[in-house]
Order: sequence, then C-alpha cells, then structure tokens
Amino acid sequence: MTLIQKIKSGKIPESVKKVALAESIDAELLAYKISTGNIAIVQNKKRKHIQPVGIGEGLKTKVNANIGTSENQDDTKFELDKLRLCEQVKADTVMDLSTGRNLIETRKKILEKSSIPVGTVPIYQCAVKSKEKNQDILSMTTEDMFKAVEGQAEEGVDFMTIHCGINRKSVAALHRSERVMDVVSRGGAFTIGWMIKHDKENPFFESFDRLLDIAKKYEITLSLGDGMRPGAIADASDEAQFSELSVLAELVRQSREASVQVIVEGPGHMPLDQITTNVKIQKQLTDGAPFYVLGPLVTDIAPGYDHITGAIGGAIAASVGADFLCYVTPQEHLGLPQLSDVKEGIIASRIAAHAADIVKKVPKAKEADLEMSKARKELDWKTQEKISLDPEKIQKQSKKKPANLDACTMCGSLCSMKLISQYLGNENVDQCV
Amino acid sequence: MTLIQKIKSGKIPESVKKVALAESIDAELLAYKISTGNIAIVQNKKRKHIQPVGIGEGLKTKVNANIGTSENQDDTKFELDKLRLCEQVKADTVMDLSTGRNLIETRKKILEKSSIPVGTVPIYQCAVKSKEKNQDILSMTTEDMFKAVEGQAEEGVDFMTIHCGINRKSVAALHRSERVMDVVSRGGAFTIGWMIKHDKENPFFESFDRLLDIAKKYEITLSLGDGMRPGAIADASDEAQFSELSVLAELVRQSREASVQVIVEGPGHMPLDQITTNVKIQKQLTDGAPFYVLGPLVTDIAPGYDHITGAIGGAIAASVGADFLCYVTPQEHLGLPQLSDVKEGIIASRIAAHAADIVKKVPKAKEADLEMSKARKELDWKTQEKISLDPEKIQKQSKKKPANLDACTMCGSLCSMKLISQYLGNENVDQCV
Repeated sequence: MTLIQKIKSGKIPESVKKVALAESIDAELLAYKISTGNIAIVQNKKRKHIQPVGIGEGLKTKVNANIGTSENQDDTKFELDKLRLCEQVKADTVMDLSTGRNLIETRKKILEKSSIPVGTVPIYQCAVKSKEKNQDILSMTTEDMFKAVEGQAEEGVDFMTIHCGINRKSVAALHRSERVMDVVSRGGAFTIGWMIKHDKENPFFESFDRLLDIAKKYEITLSLGDGMRPGAIADASDEAQFSELSVLAELVRQSREASVQVIVEGPGHMPLDQITTNVKIQKQLTDGAPFYVLGPLVTDIAPGYDHITGAIGGAIAASVGADFLCYVTPQEHLGLPQLSDVKEGIIASRIAAHAADIVKKVPKAKEADLEMSKARKELDWKTQEKISLDPEKIQKQSKKKPANLDACTMCGSLCSMKLISQYLGNENVDQCV
Repeated sequence: MTLIQKIKSGKIPESVKKVALAESIDAELLAYKISTGNIAIVQNKKRKHIQPVGIGEGLKTKVNANIGTSENQDDTKFELDKLRLCEQVKADTVMDLSTGRNLIETRKKILEKSSIPVGTVPIYQCAVKSKEKNQDILSMTTEDMFKAVEGQAEEGVDFMTIHCGINRKSVAALHRSERVMDVVSRGGAFTIGWMIKHDKENPFFESFDRLLDIAKKYEITLSLGDGMRPGAIADASDEAQFSELSVLAELVRQSREASVQVIVEGPGHMPLDQITTNVKIQKQLTDGAPFYVLGPLVTDIAPGYDHITGAIGGAIAASVGADFLCYVTPQEHLGLPQLSDVKEGIIASRIAAHAADIVKKVPKAKEADLEMSKARKELDWKTQEKISLDPEKIQKQSKKKPANLDACTMCGSLCSMKLISQYLGNENVDQCV
C-alpha cells in the first residue's frame, strides 16, 4: 500500500507522525492533507532510516540544494563534501544532478551518506549513458528511460523530477511562443530533443501509468518537471509555460487517483509582479498540489548574485503559497558551484523560506524573530548565535572584535538602544508626553 | 527662488533637463512632477558641478549607500575609499553618517570628492560635539541643532535627514506601543532622549518653518526621518510608526506650500506581506511624496545576510512605489562595514531596484534583461559583462576558466541551449508537433 492508501484505510503511518512532530502540527490534519494531495512526504520505502520531509500547505517552506558531478568537475568525494555541507547548513533535501562519468556510483554514495531525502532527474543518466555508448546524447530508448527510473527507485531515491508535461502540444506551443531563450531546463531539452529526433511522443507523458506503478511500488514522490520554465524575464508567463502546466495539472489528477504523491515544479526567470499570479494559477489548476519553484529569478542582469535574485522571487512565491524552494547559487549562469557557493545558496533560500513562513503563519516562525529581537536588545550574542540562520557569522565576528560586541553596528557609545533604554525606560517619559 | 518656484514661473531649470536626459523621460513632465512634489531633484545650490539625481514617480529606483567614520573605525581616508567604491559600483547617492572625532573635516572631504549627491543626519554632529564638550550626548541646545543644519547646508550637503515627525504625541504613541526593540534609529533616539532630558518639544517639529527657510536658501531636499521605524518584525506597523508618519504627512504639505523639496523615510524591519500596505499608506497620506526606505528587512534571524533580507523587502517596496532604497550591508547587526560589505550592499540594493524597475516599466529597465538574455543565448560573454550589474564577476570567471566559457553552469557538453538550438532551430520541429 502507498502512504496515501494507508491513510485512507484509517492508519497514521510512522512517517506522518514524525513529520507532524517536526512541524509542530496535528498528525491527523497532516494525514488528511496528504490524502487530499496538498502535502507530500518525501521518503522512499527503502529509506526508512532517514527523517521524512513534508512539503506543502501549512508546513515550513522547504529548501532543496542541487549537487552532483559534471564533465568538468567530476569528483564524487567533492560532492560528498557538498552533501555534508548541505546537511550542516540545513538544506531540507538534496538533488543529485550528477552527469559525471561514474554517476551511478556517485548517486549510490550520496544515498548511502545522506540523512535527508535525495532527489534525481533520471533522464540525465540516460543521456550520459547514451553518450558513453555512442556519442549521441539522445539515442536512449523508451525502455532505457523507464529502466533508469526503476533502477533509481530501487536504489532508494526519494523523489524524481520527470518532465512529463512536455508533449507534442506543449512543444507546439513552445514553437509558437518565439522565446528569447527557448528551453533552459536540461531535462526539458533532452526530452524535446528526443521527441524531435525520434519523431515520437514523450514516453513519460504517453505511458504515465507506468511511472505511477514505479512510484507506487517504492513510494517515490513524483516531481512533475517544468521543462518549459522561462529562462529569461522576456519569456515569463507565455503560452509554452502554461501549456505545460495544464498538462501537469491533468497528471496531478491521475497521480491522486493512483494514490501516488506528487509535487509540481515551476519557474524560473520572472518579473516580480507575475510571481503571485503564477503561484495562484498553479494552486488553482492543481487543486493545491505542493509547488516547487526554482527561484524565481526576478532579473537576468545580476550574474554572480543569482542567489539574491532567487531569494527575492522565492520569498514572494513562498509567501503566497509555494512550498519548496530550489536553491540558486552565486555561480548560476557563471560556472560550477564550489563549497562556499553551496552555502551561500542554501542560506539565501532559507532566508526566503523563513521570510515567507512568517507571512504563512507557520508554527514557530515569527517566534524565532521575536526571540532574536529580544536577544538583540539585551546584546545577548550567545542567544543570537543560537537562533541565527548562520551562527558562524556571529562566531566569526565575536572572534574578530570581542571588545566591540556590546554595541550595535557603527554606533559605539552612540548606541540608540542604550540611549533609549536610559530615557524611555524611566519615569520621565510621562513628563515628556 | 527654489527649484519648484522656478518651475512654477514657467522655467525648465538646467538640473531638470539633466535628470530628464539621464532618465530618458520628457523634461516638461519631469518638471511638472517636481512642482507637485512627486519627484525631488537632490542637489544643493552650491554643488552645481555634480550630476543631479531625481527621486520619485516614474524614475529609476535609486540606491543610497551609507558611509562615515565612527568611534571604532575613525579614518577619513578609509571613508574616501568607500566613497570611490560607491561611485564605481554605482550607488546613486551617499550619506555621510560620520560620528568620528573629525567628522566636520571628514564631511568636507567627502563633499569635495563626491560626484554624487551627499546626504547627512545633522543631529549626529550635535551629539558628537556635545559629547566632546562635556561628555553628555544630549546637552546640545536648540540653537546648536539649527546651526548644524545651516552649517552643513552652507558646506554643500544635498539632502538631510531630519527627524521632525517625532513630537510629544508620537512619543506617547511609542510608549503605548510596548515595542520589543523601542527605537533603533540613532537620530530618533537622540531626538527622543533630548526631548525627555530637556522636557521640551522637538525643535525640528516645533520650528519646522526655520528648517524650511534653510532648505529654501540652499535648495536642500529635506528627508523626513522615521525615528520610529520598527527595528524588529514584532514591532512593524504599530501605532508609534503610523503616528510619526501622519506627522510627516502634515510636514510634507507645509514643505510643498513653501516650495521646498521633500522626501519621506520609511521602515525598517517588517514582515513581507505588510510592505505593500505600508508603501500605499505612505503614498496616500503624503499625496505621492517620494518614499525612501531602509530595507525593509523581512526577517530578524539572518545576521550576516541583511543585504539579502533588505533586497527582498526593497524589491517588493520599490515594485509598488518606493522610490529610493537605502542599502543594508552584510555587516548590519554585526559590526562595522568594510569595503567588500559596501560593495555587496550596493549590488544587493541595485538588484532590488532593478527588479522593481522592470515592474514599474521604467524606461530601459526590461530592455537590459532582454539584451542580457540574448547575449546569454549567444554565449556572448563580452556583452553579458557590459550589461551585468557587477561586470567583475564575469571578468573573474573568464580569467579562471577560459576553456569553460562556451557552456552554461554545470552543463558542459550537456548544455540545454546548444541542444535545443540544434533540434528546435531546424525544420524537424514541424514533424514533431
């Protein structure tokens, strides 16, 4: 039985109890929202030892970090260092997007070491393996594609991005859209290229039932990919994007009928004032399926700072209902991310997630800010360190300037908080007013 | 005659023509909006040699960077280095918030060197000078306060923050508000402390006419300070804040009657869903006075990353009408900003400003993104460098990995853009659809 089936049969499975505890919410309410498809719990049946992660309505906004080898940085050990960093800096999930030579080995090691859910994009493996065999990236067969999915499920992958919203109709829409950047999703590009090369419908769309069967068997959460996500401000909210989204909405319905957990992926590059509308449309079309966004990046002109452009978009998206933020590192659009980029990317996304959680009234969100403000007023640096999203920043500061730490930024003896406590804290205030 | 009086007499002053050119807008429309108080041009009569900067409705969102000496980092030369950096990284204005020993000398050097408008908070000088004389920060007289304003106007300061919205009534509101953080504005704390100590009304409120006379004489833009700005998420949008804002709205009316240019300062720390409402209230109460916000910072729990929390809030604020963003550096709430912090702070604010300008339909804003996207598709790194908010990031990358620069982040030979051009660019697409 799948998680949803168990819940429908009246049980509260262990993973639901664990997530309820972690989120400080009622387990029965959580179970109900999983059964209606408004929340997904990401955890492969084979990985009962990890902490399951809940994504969706009323829960903390989650953050995913992408790691993985590539042609030009092909070192599994380095990716395991990144994984450790992701756990330290509190990413909620990682996706292994390896495209290096030993990507299966890399994934197995990541699955072995990771204490948080691991996602993948199985078509990457098909492309890399095709290339290894005969130099053509897109020579994989339909069988290869499903075998990659099933193999990864068997290994323990917890969630998978499948670009099943790409079909002949959405490709036609893409063609009509006359985009500046066409397709920036790699999985999307593989899928579209494959369809054109082989003159066939997308197997993941055409045989979606087969995907559902695998997902059921292993309790994979399907992350319905947005291969048509806009990769430029100029391309946002066009026919191609919404054409794919409407296919995904139909596949969400089919997944729910099959009691398979599903989340939906979204943009991308997008002007800030289109984000709220996009989230609301996704929620409306999918009847509240969890929404997993990449960014959105609110401008194209800040390479080197796309963790910031993504944090702006992510905060807005999450504040109006997006549930899951894929991080963007400062190296986006520039090169391959190093450890410091991974950290910067995760913290920026966690800031966006937390800023949104205050608005969403997620349990314990604004309470953290209140506790921080109180500690700030008391100049209590130990407590500030404890609550801070990156305690290291305060630790480093206190090592550098211990003498300076009883005063605020730039203020010294002119500290407004000290001054105001002196005057506002005493009885004279009543004489003044 | 003031700028507004000249415009009302039918002239288009030189500074208006310069700003119109810089903003790609019509000079007559600009002049009209200055006359109605919806736009201010920041430039002291004594500094005709600098490029005047327009702030307000329909113009590019501007970014201010704070610099200045302090007790613990009291080196004028270092602040001049920061000034140069501000100009390089394209801050639109700087504020000299010096509180070091030779703050008058420091300010004179900054005014001498700066090619962009310079703002100050004159009451800082009063506090520092009081302290030098007799160890009590708040021993200055009313005369000292106005003399500081007039002296700085005479030196050429282009705009000044005056906390004239603080009066007995707004202090009473503050007392009722039971804030976590009371007052985090230093000028606000000086003013409130002074009022309580001397049991007097705020001179800048009580004798606002005298301020207007100085502003008229030198064409100072008055920046009506928000001494009551919330310094904690928990304190946002309370009675104290709005009580001060309503006083400021009345002073905006008086400034317009006197043909004095005026902008209004705003929060602060604030949950992100309150930002739009706050901007709309400010615009409503002040009949569209230019709005200058500090942040807003959308969470308290990210010390070390407040340039990001501020960029999130600033982008939202500016997208719904805020006109002028005061930068926040990564050192906010931690310590004194170094050169790298100044740069990070300016770029983060410029990202927020530009993301908003796309939404505001500011001339040439989204066109930059379009040009960047086209260059990105062509893998044309030279053009990307030219358009980028921080060209250095691309320069550094191209020095590090020259061989890698014809592929996107992480993709290598699996570049989606190359692949999709190959397949989508040819005639086969019609067979597919």
